[in-house]
Amino acid sequence: MPLQVAVCGPRHCTEDDKSHAYEVGILLAQAGAIVICGGGTGVMAAVAAGVRAGNGLVIGVRPGNTATDASPDLSAVIVTNLGEARNAIIVWSADAVIAIGGSWGTLSEIALAKRRGDVPVITLGSWIILDRDGNPLPESVTVASSPRQAVDLALAVRPVRPQETI
Amino acid sequence: MPLQVAVCGPRHCTEDDKSHAYEVGILLAQAGAIVICGGGTGVMAAVAAGVRAGNGLVIGVRPGNTATDASPDLSAVIVTNLGEARNAIIVWSADAVIAIGGSWGTLSEIALAKRRGDVPVITLGSWIILDRDGNPLPESVTVASSPRQAVDLALAVRPVRPQETI
Amino acid sequence: MPLQVAVCGPRHCTEDDKSHAYEVGILLAQAGAIVICGGGTGVMAAVAAGVRAGNGLVIGVRPGNTATDASPDLSAVIVTNLGEARNAIIVWSADAVIAIGGSWGTLSEIALAKRRGDVPVITLGSWIILDRDGNPLPESVTVASSPRQAVDLALAVRPVRPQETI
Amino acid sequence: MPLQVAVCGPRHCTEDDKSHAYEVGILLAQAGAIVICGGGTGVMAAVAAGVRAGNGLVIGVRPGNTATDASPDLSAVIVTNLGEARNAIIVWSADAVIAIGGSWGTLSEIALAKRRGDVPVITLGSWIILDRDGNPLPESVTVASSPRQAVDLALAVRPVRPQETI
Repeated sequence: MPLQVAVCGPRHCTEDDKSHAYEVGILLAQAGAIVICGGGTGVMAAVAAGVRAGNGLVIGVRPGNTATDASPDLSAVIVTNLGEARNAIIVWSADAVIAIGGSWGTLSEIALAKRRGDVPVITLGSWIILDRDGNPLPESVTVASSPRQAVDLALAVRPVRPQETI
Repeated sequence: MPLQVAVCGPRHCTEDDKSHAYEVGILLAQAGAIVICGGGTGVMAAVAAGVRAGNGLVIGVRPGNTATDASPDLSAVIVTNLGEARNAIIVWSADAVIAIGGSWGTLSEIALAKRRGDVPVITLGSWIILDRDGNPLPESVTVASSPRQAVDLALAVRPVRPQETI
Repeated sequence: MPLQVAVCGPRHCTEDDKSHAYEVGILLAQAGAIVICGGGTGVMAAVAAGVRAGNGLVIGVRPGNTATDASPDLSAVIVTNLGEARNAIIVWSADAVIAIGGSWGTLSEIALAKRRGDVPVITLGSWIILDRDGNPLPESVTVASSPRQAVDLALAVRPVRPQETI
Repeated sequence: MPLQVAVCGPRHCTEDDKSHAYEVGILLAQAGAIVICGGGTGVMAAVAAGVRAGNGLVIGVRPGNTATDASPDLSAVIVTNLGEARNAIIVWSADAVIAIGGSWGTLSEIALAKRRGDVPVITLGSWIILDRDGNPLPESVTVASSPRQAVDLALAVRPVRPQETI
């Protein structure tokens, strides 16, 4: 089975977040990884467009009860009708999680992924989390400085062979 | 976006159920529909194998917290960690639902699909549901007599063009 | 911890269903059992009213994202925002399940409870489920003929002492 | 319906967190508010014990498929079998959210509550969240300095009359 990488990020994001997400999508597709995302606008739409541009497979996991508001670049849509509880599904479906940009929904995905614990969590321009005394947490997320680095960190989970792609 | 068809059925099923599921998988793949299934053994594995044989896309939606027990023929795995509540996700992700064989889990998917209400539910060798007086329900499932008929009924939802496939 | 009994049933139900649900609610409350229900109208509202009349504890588990549409007789409301996937929560929270009346949602709860497998499922005026050949299922639900019998079957799970009530 | 307040916090917490949670539980119970918590150990058990000491109603929402590991001080147990997706249910069931102590699970509840957006989120000794540049977020959580203040901020949502309690 190909590696599955969740790419999380806000509906309302910066232009930098969008271009980062697009590049992450292309790179993951070219590496033969499947991308799981929230399937909406902003970072979610940008990563889906990137995956499509890279001829990859990208699945959107929607919170509502319909696929009509899903990004047109998705390969398939999972309609959960679970609201934001669907964030847990995105996180549990992933071999690695990349969070691009900051929002409360994105933070919930970072937190759920760290709570799960057995999956690398890489952030790119996302929010900063400190302990109650304002100090960095001992085992926190890995902060990437570029899309290329974020993807490399995610792909380091295990070798992916291009022929693994569908 | 291609048509998405859920194919539901038991882990423990008859040989007929398995061959029906395999044929349904091939036919849906050849028609360019995406298949959503539970991703496990029995009917779930047979439909996944059929879709793979037809060069289609099949997504397994697992109840546990890992993809390690998923059918090897899946294109991608959604790991929900939601237990049997994941049955609702399979049903809500579908433009049409085909249930092959009978079990309590399969019955829950039929019931949830009818509860949702705006999606055709087609059964092939599944359980029979009667009202409290033992009479057929006025608006119940559509009983198919063959894989071909089940698929034709599902595809009747809306036209699918082969070029819609990824 | 007191025994917890799920009482399931349709929004749209008969007058008999309502009076049965009300009586089941009173009897369960008097026996010191906690009642879990869907928290809406119809059977759900009737059982909540019965529990309140019996000075018991009844928790409504709602599918939407608000408690504003919950029955006023509930002791507390769990707002799931999970749609019909919440039916699984009602079932998993119960030491015994009583289904009163018939509907697709109620059938999904019966099916999920039987799929769970380690909990008695008692029906009172609910739908009838047969195998693919039209024969009764070997290990199916227990059909009660009165609210009193339904409650007695549910309470048979394990002894409940009145002092267990909160 | 009485006010419902979610009290979130880690399994593994400090002694200060425990005593804070216990005091929050007593104060909420005395004010007639229903408490929703995760139903486990640590902060969850401490707040349940506090509510019981205050003769209040406290509901535990468990992630697993059984109530056997639930705190003995709970009034009732909701068994979700949804894993950490149950955090969303705790948050959506609340008129106000109090987070005591820091952990990834607790952070996910804070984030989900802020994502929901229409509910006050009060923290007491929890983690600190900054934007990508290390600055405080414009609309973030309210930091309380004592259990009394945390409870007062939660109860400020709307008047609670003692006679509203069950």
